[in-house]
Amino acid sequence: MNPVKVDESALPPVPLTVEGASVLHQMFRVRWPAWKRVTPELRAELAAELQVLMDGKQSAAFSILGHKGDLMLVHFRKDFEQLGQVQTRILKSGLGEYLEPTASYLSMVELGLYESTAKAYTNLAEKGITPFSPEWNQSIAETLERQKQAMAPRLWPDIPDKKYICFYPMDRKRGEARNWYSETMAERQRMMHEHGMIGRRYADDVRQIITGSIGFDDWEWGVDLFAEDPLVFKKLIYEMRFDEVSAVYALFGTFYVGVRLHEFSSFLGV
Amino acid sequence: MNPVKVDESALPPVPLTVEGASVLHQMFRVRWPAWKRVTPELRAELAAELQVLMDGKQSAAFSILGHKGDLMLVHFRKDFEQLGQVQTRILKSGLGEYLEPTASYLSMVELGLYESTAKAYTNLAEKGITPFSPEWNQSIAETLERQKQAMAPRLWPDIPDKKYICFYPMDRKRGEARNWYSETMAERQRMMHEHGMIGRRYADDVRQIITGSIGFDDWEWGVDLFAEDPLVFKKLIYEMRFDEVSAVYALFGTFYVGVRLHEFSSFLGV
Amino acid sequence: MNPVKVDESALPPVPLTVEGASVLHQMFRVRWPAWKRVTPELRAELAAELQVLMDGKQSAAFSILGHKGDLMLVHFRKDFEQLGQVQTRILKSGLGEYLEPTASYLSMVELGLYESTAKAYTNLAEKGITPFSPEWNQSIAETLERQKQAMAPRLWPDIPDKKYICFYPMDRKRGEARNWYSETMAERQRMMHEHGMIGRRYADDVRQIITGSIGFDDWEWGVDLFAEDPLVFKKLIYEMRFDEVSAVYALFGTFYVGVRLHEFSSFLGV
Amino acid sequence: MNPVKVDESALPPVPLTVEGASVLHQMFRVRWPAWKRVTPELRAELAAELQVLMDGKQSAAFSILGHKGDLMLVHFRKDFEQLGQVQTRILKSGLGEYLEPTASYLSMVELGLYESTAKAYTNLAEKGITPFSPEWNQSIAETLERQKQAMAPRLWPDIPDKKYICFYPMDRKRGEARNWYSETMAERQRMMHEHGMIGRRYADDVRQIITGSIGFDDWEWGVDLFAEDPLVFKKLIYEMRFDEVSAVYALFGTFYVGVRLHEFSSFLGV
Amino acid sequence: MNPVKVDESALPPVPLTVEGASVLHQMFRVRWPAWKRVTPELRAELAAELQVLMDGKQSAAFSILGHKGDLMLVHFRKDFEQLGQVQTRILKSGLGEYLEPTASYLSMVELGLYESTAKAYTNLAEKGITPFSPEWNQSIAETLERQKQAMAPRLWPDIPDKKYICFYPMDRKRGEARNWYSETMAERQRMMHEHGMIGRRYADDVRQIITGSIGFDDWEWGVDLFAEDPLVFKKLIYEMRFDEVSAVYALFGTFYVGVRLHEFSSFLGV
Repeated sequence: MNPVKVDESALPPVPLTVEGASVLHQMFRVRWPAWKRVTPELRAELAAELQVLMDGKQSAAFSILGHKGDLMLVHFRKDFEQLGQVQTRILKSGLGEYLEPTASYLSMVELGLYESTAKAYTNLAEKGITPFSPEWNQSIAETLERQKQAMAPRLWPDIPDKKYICFYPMDRKRGEARNWYSETMAERQRMMHEHGMIGRRYADDVRQIITGSIGFDDWEWGVDLFAEDPLVFKKLIYEMRFDEVSAVYALFGTFYVGVRLHEFSSFLGV
Repeated sequence: MNPVKVDESALPPVPLTVEGASVLHQMFRVRWPAWKRVTPELRAELAAELQVLMDGKQSAAFSILGHKGDLMLVHFRKDFEQLGQVQTRILKSGLGEYLEPTASYLSMVELGLYESTAKAYTNLAEKGITPFSPEWNQSIAETLERQKQAMAPRLWPDIPDKKYICFYPMDRKRGEARNWYSETMAERQRMMHEHGMIGRRYADDVRQIITGSIGFDDWEWGVDLFAEDPLVFKKLIYEMRFDEVSAVYALFGTFYVGVRLHEFSSFLGV
Repeated sequence: MNPVKVDESALPPVPLTVEGASVLHQMFRVRWPAWKRVTPELRAELAAELQVLMDGKQSAAFSILGHKGDLMLVHFRKDFEQLGQVQTRILKSGLGEYLEPTASYLSMVELGLYESTAKAYTNLAEKGITPFSPEWNQSIAETLERQKQAMAPRLWPDIPDKKYICFYPMDRKRGEARNWYSETMAERQRMMHEHGMIGRRYADDVRQIITGSIGFDDWEWGVDLFAEDPLVFKKLIYEMRFDEVSAVYALFGTFYVGVRLHEFSSFLGV
Repeated sequence: MNPVKVDESALPPVPLTVEGASVLHQMFRVRWPAWKRVTPELRAELAAELQVLMDGKQSAAFSILGHKGDLMLVHFRKDFEQLGQVQTRILKSGLGEYLEPTASYLSMVELGLYESTAKAYTNLAEKGITPFSPEWNQSIAETLERQKQAMAPRLWPDIPDKKYICFYPMDRKRGEARNWYSETMAERQRMMHEHGMIGRRYADDVRQIITGSIGFDDWEWGVDLFAEDPLVFKKLIYEMRFDEVSAVYALFGTFYVGVRLHEFSSFLGV
Repeated sequence: MNPVKVDESALPPVPLTVEGASVLHQMFRVRWPAWKRVTPELRAELAAELQVLMDGKQSAAFSILGHKGDLMLVHFRKDFEQLGQVQTRILKSGLGEYLEPTASYLSMVELGLYESTAKAYTNLAEKGITPFSPEWNQSIAETLERQKQAMAPRLWPDIPDKKYICFYPMDRKRGEARNWYSETMAERQRMMHEHGMIGRRYADDVRQIITGSIGFDDWEWGVDLFAEDPLVFKKLIYEMRFDEVSAVYALFGTFYVGVRLHEFSSFLGV
């Protein structure tokens, strides 16, 4: 069978993605005046109760630098139900009463598959298979399943054990003249590739986890960076700001920088 | 009688809509410190009092993921008067004192009738009937009445009994260069049709209810999605973001994701 | 004397307006926890004290749907001094302590006189009278005085006794490419005329009062709609959104929808 | 010596300004519930203590219409140090505890000298004196000193004793297509002249004080208008909105309208 | 070896920067009602405890003019860990309970090296060394190290001992038509040079410290100005607003102006 000549503009414009862990960032201010009035014994007990919830590599606590909150808790879980459970347990724990939520972010670990998508869509088009036909859907589902298997370690990561975290949400611009979602797949793929090359140069010094939040929270993506030296956050993001996808299309929300707390007790003055 | 040749640009630009249930979304933060001081007996009593208000398929409660509130109550009612009544009863209930409102949304279930509108307007123009003449008004009123009858099940739905809800408000852009309300009816109809096709592909996995809020609240529409697996919220909305009407013209407000609470008591620690 | 040939672009660009009642919208949240602790006798007494302030047709109370406040009080008065007095009396009343202000809007009933302005300016120009000369000022002052007399009932209205209110503030856009204030008087007059035609079609079902707030509050105009059926708010505003002046030039603030309270006592649980 | 032919585009683009009084606007909400619990004797004493701080013509108090605060205090002082002193004295006064700050504005009375600037720059250029050379700096310093002397009464005004105040901050737009700071000096001078002509027509009815706040607060200028009839605020600002500098380049912040309080005692219920 | 002809557009677009002190700005409102209830003895003790934390030239306190806070503390430290320590010590100090955080800013002293960057990149390109190759990286690292040594006094400054501070954050615009990050390196270098010339003219009267905050906080840079006379803040920033880089590309956040407090005790009424 001769391959059909592919009209790229007729292919679906949506890049495939695979998702892994469900992620919740919680920012809290401690109600210090009330907390200081708790007896040292009870403080120790309440801190220990929360410490248990945070154990393992799927939750981590950070002390936020600046006034955006005192504490940031990051949870990676199997699904939203488990996120709901940990959220409720913290809220109802003895310490919960002393934590005032100031912000949060709900998302899922996401890998965007621009290169696989281009191959898969072209391949199916060459075979003359119509997008969204049962055969097409079946083939795409298989591609996604294969990618999920292959990328499982990146989809279900431990929270990196680094001293500093930098978290921020972001959007792709949909302006009147410059609109990410109106660019062709090929253009988007090219720009994302260039963007990825910068990240790779920093791979030794900073660990990056991208989470998708379309339909879950107020920005399209959440970015977590983990490093031993916070200066690399600045170097990496500044360098990226000059690549086309960021310079033209990136919109950024609030930045949170925190220092890892391996245990609450000293932070909470216990 | 020969039909008049229709000048489409002279037809009214407003698509017909039919409306059904009046809808109120209420987001609350629980005043946990005060609530925890209530005796278990009284907590149980107050939770039961609120539970009664929520019974039936016209009100539902969700536990919000993240910090935008603890509780989202969704009410579908016959009219705004009944919404006002349920709002007042909650406010004055014993539990009301422990609920701090953080957000809300007021709207009506709405079905936009682009295709019927195009037919009806063209049809009347072919008959030489002037827009907004008594005869025209009469005919349009009959069309709307017929549609309301035919679409009653979609206009007066039960709240879908799914595990997850995603609610967000949205606008159509009125920019200096790209303005939804300055597009021709035919263009808008074409884009809405393409948009609808995506929704249909997800119909098995996600139930969508569109409510209109022009004149009622700060955005033009409110969207409720209901699903067993929240990942479909992300898949659906991401795919839609690439269709023209969303890529170019959609503006989004705050997203709320919640988990259905079939009863308050356990959530409220009763 | 032959009339001078009029150069329209040399006429003053400002449409004449006449003003009537001074208007204050006040939105309050009731401090329910504290209020519920007041004895029933005192609650009744305090509600009655406020009721007196609201009597007559120049003040009205509404229960707000949603979380933007519990109560909206609307006052029409002779001047700002009287508005200040009613504001202070409410603040210092026994109930004032239980009302937390969440929003407000200060404005004056305004009628824009595009058609009279065009006639008056052209007329004076034809007579060769220079804009802003004493003769011109005198003639314009007389025109305004005549209009004020003729329009007194619309300038000094009672608050319409309808079940629902919809209040929102708005601006005319001053964008880089589309700027209302840079349009010619003739273009603005044409667009306002088209806009007015829609309002007229809804005149049986909705009563509209426009107030001007340039120099008084954060938007240029405040709009009050009064109706027995709130659906007409949506129908009217949606239809208007497609006319040129709204589609291109209207910017909208927060929408408040309320249900008329003919007496406070039951709302306040007295 | 023949004058050099002047290349206007080579002249410095910055208009000269002279500055006078340092100005602080303070907006406060009164903590009425707590204040009402103070004994009448103590209330009278505390009000009198604050009254002393406000005496003279360099401080004035206004009751704000609407919810943006209850009280606006305006202070004109010799320098920022004296503003800091009056701010601290109010904060630490017995009444300070009952005042919750809701907004403020820090600025200096400023006169923009477009016409003198054009003359001075051209004059120096004709003499072949290089901008920012010692000779040039010396000459400009002398010009500024002369202007300060001549304009002393406008730079160091008493607070006008009118019944109403209107205060708002503003910016000049720096858009992508229309940018005040990229216009030539000659164009800016022409537009400011036209703008000034409108103000002059209202000079009998409204007293205007412009303060500069670049580097001091979040907008570039603060405008205070004082009048016996607040309608002139609306008339003046509406008319100005159609002149080019306002229509195209003006951005406005929050508007505050207040009624002069010659003494606190009655407002504070003493 | 003949130098390669350099294609400037192929050089990396990112200007080199060197970083020094880690900087935290903290804005607080004092909880005056509670603080006034503390005994004079304890107030003196708590103020002294905080005074110790602020001693030396690496921390300074300012009384803020206006309502954005009562107190601004500025800390220059070796790294983020030390900033975290001083933040925690203040929070947990006896006085910390009376300080409510209203804002903060996290950044690092930064020197942008446009001129050295241009030379270094061109030089390496002439030698035919590929950007980001090990040889290139090594050479750039050496350049940065040399610059850090040479600029150590500016990278690790004492907090200037002036009477007034002006702090504000800023961004470079990334608009649809005008985008700083899409300009060529040569254009950016030219504009930054022109910008720097203005600063130099004010060097006698105002001390400027630029800190970078990309990846650390919500704006790209934070600017601190220190002067004996606050009028120079206005003069300097107004003059800069007309240079191209500011007129077209600068976006500004909130401005904070404060008066240096050499000791807390009198400010805190001790």
